[in-house]
Amino acid sequence: MKRIIILGSTGSIGKNTLNIIRRMNKHFQVLALAVKNNIRILERQIHQFHPKYAAVLDIESAARLRKKVRGVTVLEGEEGIRSLLELKKADLVVNSIIGSAGLQYTHKAIREQLPVALANKESLVMAGKIIMKLARKNKVPIIPIDSEHSALFHLLKRTRPDEIEKIILTASGGPFLTWRKIDLVNVTPWDALRHPVWRMGSKITVDSATMLNKGFEIIEAHHLFDIDFNKIEVIIHPQSIIHSMIQTIDGEIYAQLSPPDMRFPILSALSFPEMIKNPLKPLGVEKIHRLSFQKPDVKKFPLLSYAYAIGKKGGNLPAALTVADEIAVKLFFERKLKFSHIFNKIKQIVESVKFIKNPDIEDIFKTERDILTRYSYSAQNDRGF
Amino acid sequence: MKRIIILGSTGSIGKNTLNIIRRMNKHFQVLALAVKNNIRILERQIHQFHPKYAAVLDIESAARLRKKVRGVTVLEGEEGIRSLLELKKADLVVNSIIGSAGLQYTHKAIREQLPVALANKESLVMAGKIIMKLARKNKVPIIPIDSEHSALFHLLKRTRPDEIEKIILTASGGPFLTWRKIDLVNVTPWDALRHPVWRMGSKITVDSATMLNKGFEIIEAHHLFDIDFNKIEVIIHPQSIIHSMIQTIDGEIYAQLSPPDMRFPILSALSFPEMIKNPLKPLGVEKIHRLSFQKPDVKKFPLLSYAYAIGKKGGNLPAALTVADEIAVKLFFERKLKFSHIFNKIKQIVESVKFIKNPDIEDIFKTERDILTRYSYSAQNDRGF
Repeated sequence: MKRIIILGSTGSIGKNTLNIIRRMNKHFQVLALAVKNNIRILERQIHQFHPKYAAVLDIESAARLRKKVRGVTVLEGEEGIRSLLELKKADLVVNSIIGSAGLQYTHKAIREQLPVALANKESLVMAGKIIMKLARKNKVPIIPIDSEHSALFHLLKRTRPDEIEKIILTASGGPFLTWRKIDLVNVTPWDALRHPVWRMGSKITVDSATMLNKGFEIIEAHHLFDIDFNKIEVIIHPQSIIHSMIQTIDGEIYAQLSPPDMRFPILSALSFPEMIKNPLKPLGVEKIHRLSFQKPDVKKFPLLSYAYAIGKKGGNLPAALTVADEIAVKLFFERKLKFSHIFNKIKQIVESVKFIKNPDIEDIFKTERDILTRYSYSAQNDRGF
Repeated sequence: MKRIIILGSTGSIGKNTLNIIRRMNKHFQVLALAVKNNIRILERQIHQFHPKYAAVLDIESAARLRKKVRGVTVLEGEEGIRSLLELKKADLVVNSIIGSAGLQYTHKAIREQLPVALANKESLVMAGKIIMKLARKNKVPIIPIDSEHSALFHLLKRTRPDEIEKIILTASGGPFLTWRKIDLVNVTPWDALRHPVWRMGSKITVDSATMLNKGFEIIEAHHLFDIDFNKIEVIIHPQSIIHSMIQTIDGEIYAQLSPPDMRFPILSALSFPEMIKNPLKPLGVEKIHRLSFQKPDVKKFPLLSYAYAIGKKGGNLPAALTVADEIAVKLFFERKLKFSHIFNKIKQIVESVKFIKNPDIEDIFKTERDILTRYSYSAQNDRGF
């Protein structure tokens, strides 16, 4: 029985994780749940899963929750969430917090030698070098939940590093795959949220529309698999059935296929290093009428090439990119920024940051804080989860 | 430098093998070539590759060849070919003989502890249990060249047996995929030879048209990978880019993709257990506009289900199936048998054979000989290579 802590249990990944745990309660048990402020859903989750601990970032919400539930210790604030990661009984933490807010908890979990199932890709985008070094030192596995990285994790597990020619990240192409560049000027938040395949949170759906999400995934893959940027390719695959591929030096390509359902990679991450029989309906290959592929249009989606460039420069710039994107997407949702201006806004913010070549974790947090302060962005109220 | 013996060097697989060796002559060297009777092509191959030995099944052709070439020892007959497999300097034999005639050489090579790159699937269809047992005992690797089995070989290599849910053999569907069953009555040899994707020899092309080729591959996979028949599925995939798949118990599917070009699996077999950089142009994933899949029509292709049934019964029946098919295909080429009657003819021959539950290799050869004698079929002149 694996005892699991879920950070961000009321988000899309959090809910899917609980769905899997409910179906497989002989294998998994919820030890603790943490959320930003959605205590309405958290209360229901507590009744259903009986965790020993809950943590709520928002202090007032935590107080309200305490009056409603029994038999669960309710912690509060960042400190409350961090203290969950010190629980000696925990076997795994699922970090599905959204955005840069998630980094500190990944870092803390690894320091506490707690294995991490990582949906918070920002942890690796912002501080991949630091996180991976610490994980190696503390011998803590970091198991990706992103479907692409989960696929690569399994494909690469079976392959020697010197046999890898390249890795190929698949991308659905997002809602604007077939739009002309010129029409992207007038995109509304509503347009951007209509993702053709995946049902996800709103921030990641917009990142998928700008394709910066794929840019983040390139940087994530670089750190997670210790692979050069020039060996990482992106290919558009609108059906999202092949989750990623690797090419070996003998010219063969290996791909992982499953339904576009996050519960597959989540189960895989929860059960690692074991493999557990999946109760979900697998892909019926005979029902696949079309898998297609095309090159990404880097002119239409300049943030993709920009992410490569920033990833290669490294230092504290990928952290700046992450935070800049959060600000730009927020401005877009507030209709203060046109969709087609997101790129320039992000570029402007990143270029304003002082470059630090070999940052430590405090430099990363400072880079983040500096940008947020400049844009009067309150960490407590506007970010994460 | 690996020294290689090629049995059947003037056939399709033999020529492709030489093509790879020519491009990679720092890794591979031809030690010996064996053919049935095509000394015109063999002579050219000798001039190009300078093998120390050549063997010609047909004794008169061998004599004619001796007058034309220098610096090469020309052997003759079955004994001549068998003696190649005793060469102490050999590192690998590629058995690309066509049909049941190939079995004895696979058996001999394994007895001589010589690794076998196997294109002759009949070796495993006819005597899989015997061959695999001997190979395990003598610690001789059998590396499949069939694109499907090559894909599975690599996919299964690093997967634990208890993690396998099933294996999925892909099939192009052959030239009659879109024909109605009723129209198959009037199929001519010429129709059957027009394979939509693969350029292969004529026997295997007709087997592909009846789908018995896929039936043979099911039996081959059963023995090669020690996997239950009920865990082997066949799926039609007309583009022949995914060469096969495995499904693990966690619901994930892993696939191998490469161009429909036999030189890929051949290089993979030649270089095993190493992986060598491939000089051929790899698959450009971005150029794939469609990969599609469908269930095979077992009513239109009854030989597919029949092969499952015969495979499960085992004993000497798969050997009988192999030889019966050779006779039926020959009658079809001679226009003495309609395409739609191939199934009944095969069934009739197989049912006439006395069942031996646990045959030894001599029982297998006897089963073969008995059927051939009954149909006045001369091994020397009509079969193999």
